[in-house]
Amino acid sequence: MGLLKVDSIDRAFEKLKDAAQVLAMPAMELPLDRSIGFILYEDVYANEDIPGFARAVVDGYAVCAKDTAASGENIPVLLKHVGQVEMGCGADFSIKPGECAEVSTGGMLPDGADAVVMVEYTAPFGVDGVAVSQGVSAGENTIQPGEDAASNTRILARGKRIGPSEIGVLAAAGVVEVKVFQPLRLAVISTGDELVPPEVSPARGQIRDINTYALSALARENGFEVVRTAVLRDDDKLLEAELRAAMAACDIVTVSGGSSQGKKDMTREVIDRVSSPGVFTHGLALKPGKPTILGMDKQSRTIFAGLPGHPVSAIMVFEILLARLWRHLTGAAETPAVPASLTKNAPSAPGKTTLWPVKLIDTENGYLAEPVFGKSGLMTTLTNADGYVVSQRNAEGIAAGSTVFVHLF
Amino acid sequence: MGLLKVDSIDRAFEKLKDAAQVLAMPAMELPLDRSIGFILYEDVYANEDIPGFARAVVDGYAVCAKDTAASGENIPVLLKHVGQVEMGCGADFSIKPGECAEVSTGGMLPDGADAVVMVEYTAPFGVDGVAVSQGVSAGENTIQPGEDAASNTRILARGKRIGPSEIGVLAAAGVVEVKVFQPLRLAVISTGDELVPPEVSPARGQIRDINTYALSALARENGFEVVRTAVLRDDDKLLEAELRAAMAACDIVTVSGGSSQGKKDMTREVIDRVSSPGVFTHGLALKPGKPTILGMDKQSRTIFAGLPGHPVSAIMVFEILLARLWRHLTGAAETPAVPASLTKNAPSAPGKTTLWPVKLIDTENGYLAEPVFGKSGLMTTLTNADGYVVSQRNAEGIAAGSTVFVHLF
Repeated sequence: MGLLKVDSIDRAFEKLKDAAQVLAMPAMELPLDRSIGFILYEDVYANEDIPGFARAVVDGYAVCAKDTAASGENIPVLLKHVGQVEMGCGADFSIKPGECAEVSTGGMLPDGADAVVMVEYTAPFGVDGVAVSQGVSAGENTIQPGEDAASNTRILARGKRIGPSEIGVLAAAGVVEVKVFQPLRLAVISTGDELVPPEVSPARGQIRDINTYALSALARENGFEVVRTAVLRDDDKLLEAELRAAMAACDIVTVSGGSSQGKKDMTREVIDRVSSPGVFTHGLALKPGKPTILGMDKQSRTIFAGLPGHPVSAIMVFEILLARLWRHLTGAAETPAVPASLTKNAPSAPGKTTLWPVKLIDTENGYLAEPVFGKSGLMTTLTNADGYVVSQRNAEGIAAGSTVFVHLF
Repeated sequence: MGLLKVDSIDRAFEKLKDAAQVLAMPAMELPLDRSIGFILYEDVYANEDIPGFARAVVDGYAVCAKDTAASGENIPVLLKHVGQVEMGCGADFSIKPGECAEVSTGGMLPDGADAVVMVEYTAPFGVDGVAVSQGVSAGENTIQPGEDAASNTRILARGKRIGPSEIGVLAAAGVVEVKVFQPLRLAVISTGDELVPPEVSPARGQIRDINTYALSALARENGFEVVRTAVLRDDDKLLEAELRAAMAACDIVTVSGGSSQGKKDMTREVIDRVSSPGVFTHGLALKPGKPTILGMDKQSRTIFAGLPGHPVSAIMVFEILLARLWRHLTGAAETPAVPASLTKNAPSAPGKTTLWPVKLIDTENGYLAEPVFGKSGLMTTLTNADGYVVSQRNAEGIAAGSTVFVHLF
């Protein structure tokens, strides 16, 4: 796999976006209280003015603002108390100039009232009088009908990730069935004669399968639905059978493992065997991540991704290609990366985009990003890293003290 | 509720931590692939050396390093090819000085070998010879037994949130049943005569219930289990009955709503009626969030939290008290806050800690934090804010251009 044949990460992502146009990206409906974490499939509009009536935002007295114009701390205005607004009810009376009505926060202003005086600036006076010692202007201490959201205005945009706030907004707008993007269905296949399941004690020459578990968890956290997992021996017939089954059931089929030259060739060859047009990226100018393979099958509408066998590499490549693809396809915003000061020089590999796993250290002066150096494939890199930093292709690396943006795992 | 009686946020959190000592905080076991997002209940140790054998980290030839000492690009050393290590098998042969064996990345070194020469620096020679044109030192291009994790070393600490990387590490260590903190069981109660469910079209004077949905979603995202929700009219008998049922089933009972003076008093009075020692914080020096109430019942081991009625305020108070309490009790790390430059002056309320909802704007020079001003309780504040910023008590506010730390919703 010569350097001339590999794609830059930008080129590979462009090809991937093109290929992903075969994906149908259907919608599905979910009950509001189960929609958290999903991505809105369509804009959401207010069906009516919110609120539907003028509301008080303080406890006090609904008044005609003009009546209070002359009032102040030492010159109270006397108004007639003509009623009290019950919470949750339309005010079934109106007030005229010279009158006022008691109202609680959130309560409806009676007809005729256009402002609210806070209770702190009032005092009972005589049998049915209220002394007001503050002037208010029209609209003061109120929310007007439609002030929060006018009927037919857009309150949430397609592509928004539904978090607690969005759940609140959807509830306010009366949306109890939410149209969201159906998660892409993913297959996670790990290959390697040396792999045993986690519950097995490895014999000499064997190691436990990590990628099936780590990549499935990562995929779920990023909005995918993992519908198939498999751990296979290095056998092209087994891989072919699994790919054929997976592509019938999934939108994206990932194959990790095969860090040796022969295995990489097998994964690529078998993807080409089962798909058309087949493999379109034969390696990346990326460290780690060079053996990454991307392909597509038009008829079954499937994307294939061959990922590095080392767990940290596989996680980072999944993040920068597949998780990013999901955000691209749905319009979801990128998760904010955390700015931090790099503690050590992080050299780049010549001609390659370089990914550095880093540990984030919280200090009084902000965050530090400590590169987690270590031999490729050490599990302890996983334990120590909180995220990764990208050093652009053709950069000479990143000097200690530079501000970097940490993409959290 | 006078200013003298309210607690600072630090004081309230200290009291809350004290009170929370009644919570049992039991463990539970989960299958590895369902443990994501939970918090480790105990340290995890490697039960054996990982890896259990010396492995190659490149494709090439296992050698006796001493044999290659004299070799270089123009002075190859000739070694005898005595075998090939099959992946996943113990090497069932050994090599002697002058010999080498083919090995793939991840394969086991045969006895006698102590280094690996990359295949790029070798060439077949004659019938069973390999010409090696690079010197390697002992251990080079290998991982030694226990180098990743030695037997009985701690590989994950109690309190670690289980993400994709931790799933990978647990798999590598053979942990298929994970002991995690059982989520605290939460009740979310909203009160207000004006509240109708989201599916109902509000009549005059009514609004849709937002808090039950937004707070439940927020709680689930923060590791709680929401076991009860209720929307109640403002009636002390109804609230008392619901609190008694909730405290029997839950660890934490939240009551939101009641932003008017009379309602706040009712919530506090009813919590005191059902619990002992009862309410210990009668308001916070916090804006927004002043009406926050905290209490505890020793016998049923329940924490009570009266939250503001406005959704944005309720969300922020939940974050800084209850989500933070969960991290304190489990030892989980705080989620990194995103440093950003404030775009506008954010004045503080005198004598109060002030929380500003902000919108995060991604620019070439880093993030900007734009304060989302707006009347208290506007739903659109929810739509526009990505997180919040804390202005400390007794600060004069935060000047435009200052670096602030944005706690993401």
